[in-house]
Amino acid sequence: MAAYTKMTEAERKEEYARLLQEYDALKAEGLNLNMARGKPGKAQLDLVSDMFDLMRTPEEYVSDGIDVRNYGEVAGLPAARRLFAEILDCQSQQVLVGGNASLQLMYDTISKGFTHGLLRSPRPWCREKTLKWLCPAPGYDRHFKVTESFGFELITIPMTENGPDMNAVEEAVKDPAVKGIWCVPKYSNPDGYIYSEETIHRMAALKPAAPDFTIMWDNAYCMHEFEGAYVPFPDIIRLCAQAGNPDMVFEFASTSKVTLPGAGISCMASSEANIAYIQKLLGIQIISFDKVNQQRHVLYLKDKAHTLELMHKHAAVLGPKFRAVIDALDREITPLEIAHWTRPKGGYFVSLYAMPGTAKRTHQLCKEVGVTLTGAGATFPYGKDPDDSNLRIAPSLPPVEELEKAIKVLCTCLKMSALEKLGV
Amino acid sequence: MAAYTKMTEAERKEEYARLLQEYDALKAEGLNLNMARGKPGKAQLDLVSDMFDLMRTPEEYVSDGIDVRNYGEVAGLPAARRLFAEILDCQSQQVLVGGNASLQLMYDTISKGFTHGLLRSPRPWCREKTLKWLCPAPGYDRHFKVTESFGFELITIPMTENGPDMNAVEEAVKDPAVKGIWCVPKYSNPDGYIYSEETIHRMAALKPAAPDFTIMWDNAYCMHEFEGAYVPFPDIIRLCAQAGNPDMVFEFASTSKVTLPGAGISCMASSEANIAYIQKLLGIQIISFDKVNQQRHVLYLKDKAHTLELMHKHAAVLGPKFRAVIDALDREITPLEIAHWTRPKGGYFVSLYAMPGTAKRTHQLCKEVGVTLTGAGATFPYGKDPDDSNLRIAPSLPPVEELEKAIKVLCTCLKMSALEKLGV
Repeated sequence: MAAYTKMTEAERKEEYARLLQEYDALKAEGLNLNMARGKPGKAQLDLVSDMFDLMRTPEEYVSDGIDVRNYGEVAGLPAARRLFAEILDCQSQQVLVGGNASLQLMYDTISKGFTHGLLRSPRPWCREKTLKWLCPAPGYDRHFKVTESFGFELITIPMTENGPDMNAVEEAVKDPAVKGIWCVPKYSNPDGYIYSEETIHRMAALKPAAPDFTIMWDNAYCMHEFEGAYVPFPDIIRLCAQAGNPDMVFEFASTSKVTLPGAGISCMASSEANIAYIQKLLGIQIISFDKVNQQRHVLYLKDKAHTLELMHKHAAVLGPKFRAVIDALDREITPLEIAHWTRPKGGYFVSLYAMPGTAKRTHQLCKEVGVTLTGAGATFPYGKDPDDSNLRIAPSLPPVEELEKAIKVLCTCLKMSALEKLGV
Repeated sequence: MAAYTKMTEAERKEEYARLLQEYDALKAEGLNLNMARGKPGKAQLDLVSDMFDLMRTPEEYVSDGIDVRNYGEVAGLPAARRLFAEILDCQSQQVLVGGNASLQLMYDTISKGFTHGLLRSPRPWCREKTLKWLCPAPGYDRHFKVTESFGFELITIPMTENGPDMNAVEEAVKDPAVKGIWCVPKYSNPDGYIYSEETIHRMAALKPAAPDFTIMWDNAYCMHEFEGAYVPFPDIIRLCAQAGNPDMVFEFASTSKVTLPGAGISCMASSEANIAYIQKLLGIQIISFDKVNQQRHVLYLKDKAHTLELMHKHAAVLGPKFRAVIDALDREITPLEIAHWTRPKGGYFVSLYAMPGTAKRTHQLCKEVGVTLTGAGATFPYGKDPDDSNLRIAPSLPPVEELEKAIKVLCTCLKMSALEKLGV
């Protein structure tokens, strides 16, 4: 098959007619497949079923002398703080362990900046005239929606294979209305890029005009390799401190994709001063997070090495799914020169760049055949992709056989929308 | 022993000297006893240990077709919503089930009023010039601190045996800056009063000037009788709707004192319109609460009748503790006419009214002997009891023998501070 752009109109028409037949046949199958969200599949959930065999003896309800069942310890169990500190390569006193959702901790951080101000805020953000937030894009739609919800103007920062375009970031932070930036530094959502050493060091060394500029460092995929060995990653908290910005970063992580999506534990990590400040505000809001679940995780995951063993089992489930996606795209789409895509070794997404102006149409065509993708544009601020090109593929939920069917649909729809764009 | 007020100065001096000896002897014991917080004791935690024997089979991970381990269902498992609806005598579609802390849901409601506005708010509360909140006092310090933290002016409403003074409430809500009221309607914190039918109906029929006036109905002790039979309680949501105020109330409850304080489940209940509105805002903040723990509670508690059976077991532990407190006060303090106290049949507190001007001194004397009480004044807005009289006694945590010792200390200190006040 030749590149579509090199085809004559007649050849394109012929190809489109063939695809339409294929499409109608797929439609007739009445599919209902979902590649929209980074939701682990059942095989992954079943991996950790033995977690609920723990907490059987009275001694297992006690951790560092604390009865985990009762009220108290708003910063989380010391043992859970140590576990996350080892995973993130920071200090346990820099860690606060929360409930089942790191998104909630992120939201709370922004919300408290808005209602009370953060540690270095001259005033609560709700008292500022203008609020802006940097959004490396493509990025995570839920991040963008949090800051949009609080009325921030979302500033798009281009993503590169090395992370956010740091020239653009360094320029943008000269504006004192810019209060922070969203980052998924390892296996970025959706591209699966790992921020380079240079990006990370420049990020830590930013000199923003706003004294309370905040890096929201969502290390959601900090040990989520599905191919190859664990990739060590710098401790951003130490780097910020070394660069004279000790309170500039809040890091987040969770076990949502280690144990269970709906019932894991989460953490925030930052300078001790930030943690003390947040803990004081959190103390108004909650007496303590679920320490029984924290203890269950401490007993189950044990330490970083043991957790990485579990991650190998997840990789064994996820790897083949990602390979199925990449293989199909390589085979079906590469010769046509109508799209390109990322080749991550970890995280939960493949980022697909369709021919500009065709992402929405591809999404719609897929939907009509019963294949749900993340909404086209969702990876950009306000849901608007200026190129109408990026599509986020989340291969984790469907079993491989369903996934192969879904990718077949996607390839057909990509081809059709490209041909429609070129003229048929 | 005669009433202290009827003693001569010489008699008081003699009595004080005797008490000082008693006090010094107690001090020498090096006690470390805590009656500060409504924290269940170990015997209560052990009551529900078999809760963790559930969730053993794959079928137990599925509820109404939902895999409870994965993401989704921000309003909570339908079965958990049904359970709380039965307990609160409302409709399951009026219930949203959250995480381990109802305080978090309450804080979130106020916080969302502040940042985004509630359903009927003309604008977010942060855009209002003046914000006021009604605080029936004595009341729950954590409630007061939430609204204080958001900059509300706290307006004290006198508590009566029938609930908040409704004449005062009806007058106060004429001010459009008054945005809401805190209520603990059954076994109020700390007095243990049950709001009367009349109070509840007048509350539901309020005609506040603020269109977004909000009753925060913290039904924390909705089935927490430790003496006598379960006391049925009206459904405030229906009453508000009948009075033409369908969106005026948010009710809260939890299993913190049914199963485990740190690892229960919580709910908010309100009109369907309010729940839809809150759910939309919550969707920005969290993908779902911990549905594994929700499912564990559904399987363990089953229904209201079965839950009430468990509450009888709690009553068997708590009843003797409350009787120990009341008996000691009756025996030691009644003849002296220096204090009075409430006689609740449920909830977690005894409210003690010391001789005016002596609560802080009593608290301090207790502390010096190693007995911790809730801070004097904590039950009033800004921590300031105008009479310096109210002390909240929380008898749930210490075992009975420790509790008897703690109450002995309290009685001695009450007597000493009264004599000091009268002159010795």
